[in-house]
Amino acid sequence: MKIEIICVGKLKETFYRTAVSEYLKRLSAFVKVEIIETMEISIPDKASDKECAILLNKEGDVLLNKIKKDTWCIVLDVKGKSMDSVDFSRALNECMISGQSHFTFIIGGSLGISQAVKNRAQLLLSLSDMTFTHQMTRIILLEQIYRAFCIINNRTYHK
Amino acid sequence: MKIEIICVGKLKETFYRTAVSEYLKRLSAFVKVEIIETMEISIPDKASDKECAILLNKEGDVLLNKIKKDTWCIVLDVKGKSMDSVDFSRALNECMISGQSHFTFIIGGSLGISQAVKNRAQLLLSLSDMTFTHQMTRIILLEQIYRAFCIINNRTYHK
Repeated sequence: MKIEIICVGKLKETFYRTAVSEYLKRLSAFVKVEIIETMEISIPDKASDKECAILLNKEGDVLLNKIKKDTWCIVLDVKGKSMDSVDFSRALNECMISGQSHFTFIIGGSLGISQAVKNRAQLLLSLSDMTFTHQMTRIILLEQIYRAFCIINNRTYHK
Repeated sequence: MKIEIICVGKLKETFYRTAVSEYLKRLSAFVKVEIIETMEISIPDKASDKECAILLNKEGDVLLNKIKKDTWCIVLDVKGKSMDSVDFSRALNECMISGQSHFTFIIGGSLGISQAVKNRAQLLLSLSDMTFTHQMTRIILLEQIYRAFCIINNRTYHK
């Protein structure tokens, strides 16, 4: 059982990095989680929509190259499917029961996620209607994965 | 212009406390934000539903006593209204334009929020269908308030 989280860009704030370490430690009781950071493409200040679209596609190609062949791919997308924490844990559990042992989550950059990456996804998942920073999205996702594994394993959630 | 955030319980993790300080610092450019923590009522391990309901009402009374008379009150509730970040900023801005200068946000404890507190609210706001920890809710809310003020003041969002 393995989970990869592929993220565009690095975590800048120390407190977010500390939070990530904490959740990775807690998750290690259940599953191996690896975070893979790709370099954020710098967007020129006055980039046109067309230029942004080209950059987004380039970023998408980098992401697609990192997604392994047989993994179950969940792309975070504000327009994706909303789930509550129990439904999310069920979705993961059903996949595991059906024999899936590798999951890959994708968190895009400030330009969003290219259509090609969305097409690769088995699930487009929305954490909220609200827009979160990519840094915060990473923490929220890790916490939800941890929560899901607590639910699946019938463990008390450790706050 | 003043914002109060009344929260049940204290932040335990240092990295969350650091994140709160950072957002309070950023928000100070726009508005005075004060965080008021109330003591979390300890719930006996084998509390019945009835006992929990009594505790929740007690907790609610403590919260109600802290909400000032003329403030516009927003209670965070997973079953509340979902808004995107732009709608949230518009809701705040419309209130301010109509002369409201005091907002109070309420984040409940692990038992939820009593009906009496919900009845006091001008808005029941859901950050997500997913359940977040109360600690994380505080950070997400602060970030959304900061984002809202950036949108209202037409400022570039400082990641």
